[in-house]
Amino acid sequence: MAGSVFGDIFTCSTWGESHGKALGVVVDGCPAGLSLSEEDFSSAMKRRSPGQTIYSTPRSEADEVEILSGVFEGRTTGTPISLMIRNTSQRSQDYSEVAGYYRPGHADFCFDAKYGFRDYRGGGRSSGRETAARVAAGVIAEKLLGELGIHTRAYVSQVGPHICKNNIYDGTKESIPSLEQVEKSPLRMPDLEVSKSAEQYLSELMSEGDSSGGMIECVVTGVPAGIGDPVNKKLDAMLSQALFSIGAVKGVEIGDGFKVASLVGSENNDNFIPSKDGIKKATNHAGGILGGISDGSDIVLRVAFKPTPSISKEQKTVNTSGEAVDVSVKGRHDPIIVPRAVVVVEAMVNLVLADRLLAGMGARIDKVKEFYKS
Amino acid sequence: MAGSVFGDIFTCSTWGESHGKALGVVVDGCPAGLSLSEEDFSSAMKRRSPGQTIYSTPRSEADEVEILSGVFEGRTTGTPISLMIRNTSQRSQDYSEVAGYYRPGHADFCFDAKYGFRDYRGGGRSSGRETAARVAAGVIAEKLLGELGIHTRAYVSQVGPHICKNNIYDGTKESIPSLEQVEKSPLRMPDLEVSKSAEQYLSELMSEGDSSGGMIECVVTGVPAGIGDPVNKKLDAMLSQALFSIGAVKGVEIGDGFKVASLVGSENNDNFIPSKDGIKKATNHAGGILGGISDGSDIVLRVAFKPTPSISKEQKTVNTSGEAVDVSVKGRHDPIIVPRAVVVVEAMVNLVLADRLLAGMGARIDKVKEFYKS
Amino acid sequence: MAGSVFGDIFTCSTWGESHGKALGVVVDGCPAGLSLSEEDFSSAMKRRSPGQTIYSTPRSEADEVEILSGVFEGRTTGTPISLMIRNTSQRSQDYSEVAGYYRPGHADFCFDAKYGFRDYRGGGRSSGRETAARVAAGVIAEKLLGELGIHTRAYVSQVGPHICKNNIYDGTKESIPSLEQVEKSPLRMPDLEVSKSAEQYLSELMSEGDSSGGMIECVVTGVPAGIGDPVNKKLDAMLSQALFSIGAVKGVEIGDGFKVASLVGSENNDNFIPSKDGIKKATNHAGGILGGISDGSDIVLRVAFKPTPSISKEQKTVNTSGEAVDVSVKGRHDPIIVPRAVVVVEAMVNLVLADRLLAGMGARIDKVKEFYKS
Amino acid sequence: MAGSVFGDIFTCSTWGESHGKALGVVVDGCPAGLSLSEEDFSSAMKRRSPGQTIYSTPRSEADEVEILSGVFEGRTTGTPISLMIRNTSQRSQDYSEVAGYYRPGHADFCFDAKYGFRDYRGGGRSSGRETAARVAAGVIAEKLLGELGIHTRAYVSQVGPHICKNNIYDGTKESIPSLEQVEKSPLRMPDLEVSKSAEQYLSELMSEGDSSGGMIECVVTGVPAGIGDPVNKKLDAMLSQALFSIGAVKGVEIGDGFKVASLVGSENNDNFIPSKDGIKKATNHAGGILGGISDGSDIVLRVAFKPTPSISKEQKTVNTSGEAVDVSVKGRHDPIIVPRAVVVVEAMVNLVLADRLLAGMGARIDKVKEFYKS
Repeated sequence: MAGSVFGDIFTCSTWGESHGKALGVVVDGCPAGLSLSEEDFSSAMKRRSPGQTIYSTPRSEADEVEILSGVFEGRTTGTPISLMIRNTSQRSQDYSEVAGYYRPGHADFCFDAKYGFRDYRGGGRSSGRETAARVAAGVIAEKLLGELGIHTRAYVSQVGPHICKNNIYDGTKESIPSLEQVEKSPLRMPDLEVSKSAEQYLSELMSEGDSSGGMIECVVTGVPAGIGDPVNKKLDAMLSQALFSIGAVKGVEIGDGFKVASLVGSENNDNFIPSKDGIKKATNHAGGILGGISDGSDIVLRVAFKPTPSISKEQKTVNTSGEAVDVSVKGRHDPIIVPRAVVVVEAMVNLVLADRLLAGMGARIDKVKEFYKS
Repeated sequence: MAGSVFGDIFTCSTWGESHGKALGVVVDGCPAGLSLSEEDFSSAMKRRSPGQTIYSTPRSEADEVEILSGVFEGRTTGTPISLMIRNTSQRSQDYSEVAGYYRPGHADFCFDAKYGFRDYRGGGRSSGRETAARVAAGVIAEKLLGELGIHTRAYVSQVGPHICKNNIYDGTKESIPSLEQVEKSPLRMPDLEVSKSAEQYLSELMSEGDSSGGMIECVVTGVPAGIGDPVNKKLDAMLSQALFSIGAVKGVEIGDGFKVASLVGSENNDNFIPSKDGIKKATNHAGGILGGISDGSDIVLRVAFKPTPSISKEQKTVNTSGEAVDVSVKGRHDPIIVPRAVVVVEAMVNLVLADRLLAGMGARIDKVKEFYKS
Repeated sequence: MAGSVFGDIFTCSTWGESHGKALGVVVDGCPAGLSLSEEDFSSAMKRRSPGQTIYSTPRSEADEVEILSGVFEGRTTGTPISLMIRNTSQRSQDYSEVAGYYRPGHADFCFDAKYGFRDYRGGGRSSGRETAARVAAGVIAEKLLGELGIHTRAYVSQVGPHICKNNIYDGTKESIPSLEQVEKSPLRMPDLEVSKSAEQYLSELMSEGDSSGGMIECVVTGVPAGIGDPVNKKLDAMLSQALFSIGAVKGVEIGDGFKVASLVGSENNDNFIPSKDGIKKATNHAGGILGGISDGSDIVLRVAFKPTPSISKEQKTVNTSGEAVDVSVKGRHDPIIVPRAVVVVEAMVNLVLADRLLAGMGARIDKVKEFYKS
Repeated sequence: MAGSVFGDIFTCSTWGESHGKALGVVVDGCPAGLSLSEEDFSSAMKRRSPGQTIYSTPRSEADEVEILSGVFEGRTTGTPISLMIRNTSQRSQDYSEVAGYYRPGHADFCFDAKYGFRDYRGGGRSSGRETAARVAAGVIAEKLLGELGIHTRAYVSQVGPHICKNNIYDGTKESIPSLEQVEKSPLRMPDLEVSKSAEQYLSELMSEGDSSGGMIECVVTGVPAGIGDPVNKKLDAMLSQALFSIGAVKGVEIGDGFKVASLVGSENNDNFIPSKDGIKKATNHAGGILGGISDGSDIVLRVAFKPTPSISKEQKTVNTSGEAVDVSVKGRHDPIIVPRAVVVVEAMVNLVLADRLLAGMGARIDKVKEFYKS
């Protein structure tokens, strides 16, 4: 399977570069009968767009998604849904300079090594702009999951040294910040006090021409137990692949994540307990996944993002002839990735869950027989 | 693609449970002409086997791998290579008790939710024993990579609160511990001083009937720049999927990993520098992968493992009727997973690299033409 | 996906050569709870085995299938089912001669061109023996389909110039020959009169050291309408791929097949008609598939097999140095392929149907919601 | 893998319906550096378009292909190539009538059974118009193959009872009709005499409001020996899948095809012979493929197409409530499919060959090592 197709049943095939005519995605395998219209995309595309705060590059409109196929009379037909997003807001710049050297922290050098040449305008195929297509596909997945009572919420839990303590997930469904609470902070940090400190921190970095890394936490409620396949298509394996495919990601952890290395078994195990709603767990160190299969608890994960590589601060690098040069990366770039990546993390998580839920329907012969009787 | 097939070109399809007759794997897509024999597997199978130290369950022989197809006159034929490992050392136990409840930290509950019933003997399909098949497949990948000058080394870098400081990778090839150095420690921690403290720590835990988590670090040298595809089949995305598919893994990070959340861009970016061997990087915060494609540096990653869930210490759980019970999980189980998981991590990394290297051959039209001329 | 994996959900990964230790297949994605035991395989393996009549090479026992995993207490667990068939009846021969030239009609030359060398013993990976593994996998698919009321019957409809007229499918379910009727003829031709002529024909060919081609017709009843996906995973496209993957196949046709080239639309169209069992078709020129999706009628198809390439009659060819030589292919080989291929055709058709039926469960949002409510 | 993705390495993911805004395809895995521009598509799109003769529905312009990504400075970048074709020439019609019944020979009924409802305008997703996207993708594959000296030519060899005898492939490269010769006939039948008879035949059918079936023959020169994988990804299996995925196909045969059923081995086997260009075959009954792998000869195959199902002649069918009705299918439709399908057959064959050629690069360890040294 070539590199731009996600999923096995609910698939999406993305295309487009930052400075090409358009970007898009073909979503296939979405069940027929789901209501879908172009309006459904505006909220997510707006959340992803830049220029909303001073912490992201100034641009005025959010991307508009055009549905080119797969929808009839307001419902998905079951056939491929092609979505397109025109590249309208790309300032024409003089890229001859950028073409001539390898930006540190970017894939320029790797693309040249792999393909022999590259589209050097902006970030080309490795630009963050490519995520617009994924977010659009994620909207469809989110709608499907919504029909099954599954909801995903992500937010920024850390910026540089500033870590959220309040108003974030504490293990209970009630603690999950609402969309409005997340959107209150220009950095999408629900702990508004920490958000203020982080905003200050970023302003200082921006004046220095530098950037910051951050962390995104994501919680999914409503996933039934039994989703995911043992061994290769483990739910956590699929989620991590999808998340690591987002640019700038350097780490993914589930549940207690890296903390587990220092725990003991009696601390880390989640005890099963009886409840009026069936078997539950007393704790959730596992983050909702055991043996690669969902256990019915909330799915909890974290994604670490490196600082934006493009900074105006001067850096040492080489030009394409291999000679040492000093550069200051021009062009518009965000001082931090995570606020805009929140909706991308949600999209990727939703795409994987949609795929695995559809893939899981054939797990038991009694249910297969029942399905084909009706 | 069903759940037990790894890879796209160099694939492996594993099968078998801990208490079935055998385990095995079918490796397909291995180039013809690679020398391979049953002796090639002994070293890795021995490293994986239990009973080598007091920190793993007592058993006497390592698994023996039988080659059932795909090799002729000592070389791979290009056709599927079927490897089988008989289950010889399974003590027959009374499992009726284990069948009756859901062990905390295990996938028992999830399997029942997914399939309606489960093979409750030992860990069944989710048993650590399943990794024997992966390690066997990994030997073939390792041989292939060796032909291309690529070498993988993993070791335990942390057990509970005990973290290696010396004798581990410091960014230079010379610092990579040799196989002999790794094997010197019963816990595969190259820092022998820290190993001693960790061994002490484990002895205490064992007497309490508890277990510990840990961390494995892995370094790969010799990977050329350009391996991996942008977007979905990013090299780090594929590596993380393969690593998360190992049981008990709760986190994967590349390069500086989760640290990047608190760094600034000028610290995190790796500057490119000229060298007599072509373009190199001054540092390697990226861990050898940029934009999902290898950049020619060492690939560095870390994997966090939770403590062994099966502990003899008493725990609360529910039986299959949903009633609360107290259990002490009987049977033989290791107090720690990471020492035996080192060779599994190497295997998974090698399987992904072998697959991506073969998949990468069609990236450039000039090389494709050259290939087909010869 | 490497070359030896069939299917997307219900997959099988075959391995083994004619003169290796064993052959086998790993079937994954089979729903849990299906009853399965080693006895289930005997009938199909017996039908496939040689030595039953004078028209196939003399050998005494049918292959025995060993279940190595994926079954517990007589039911499939939902995890991979590994089946193994030992190669017991391979006469050790002096193959140095065969290794030295390229047998006409065989893949020897192609294997050398592809891999640089080959396992020359018998047919190696391209031997008809490889089909034993597929037949074994097909048994599992057949059981699954049986649970859904779907039944497949194939038989030889033509041998050389001898074509069945009576006792074969005429469009009505009642006309489908039973298993017993098919097995009555040593050539599996339900028209016993034509079978006699064909048997005579073959005896003459055998005395001349030659072989014959033939045709197999296959009918499937009970497939509900709606199976298959438009465009790429069309049901007929998947069936043809599976059938063409059987050795010696040179043509596949559905319904009226090649006849349609000379028909007009008003003749070829199947009119829909009302019936007490819902909408049916008055005729079935389409063979049960329209637009790549099943229409609820019987699925009817035909497969053309070339004559066995290995004949003892002398032929001209070249040796591996490229020099012209005259050879007479020694060893045991059947004078005709189709009688033994009948069960292979049924197996391949069943594998595709099992896969597509499971893949089709996610086609409609209302059914997905219903599924996840229960 | 969802239903609209072809290929494993060189993939294409199609989207769009006949009456949606547009159609398109995303081609991924094309090697970087191939020259490509929008002009490259005009010839093929023109060949495919209707309205060129009285034997196809009147429409004025050919489709125009827009390249939205994956090309930079006139060369492919190695990243996904998104092609779009606007639907400009769709007459708005009153479809409420067509929505109400199931057209014989069409997939209407099957779509309703599968999805619960359908886009009834024109043929929707199962319309022949969908092939425009495949033809566009095929142009890229054709360019790639051209770089490797591989050329594909298809033409109509039969219309109804009229079968070409002269000016078609006779086994020699010289006999392959040129593009100009094929285009001379309004039906793309290189035998101009037979073409005249067929044209007469069609005129009669058109006046009766009926349609005709036909056959397309296709020859590929220059494919090196060794392409294709044993067992599942046999080259002929992949080709047949791709060809059967074209609407209206009811049969595919390779080489002597269905004739082989009546041949004997000594007739059907192709003898290998020495030649100054290496080992060749004296005949080509196999059609260029042995054991699923190309043998270096021309690849020869034939595809049978049923008559256009949409005819204005009155037919019996049922409406969506299941009641018997008489209908005359209105709208514009061709009286015959094969002339316009010629370029679709070439496209599908080229897509499969491009994919398999790239997939075949990892077959031998010596070539893999050589590749990675350079």
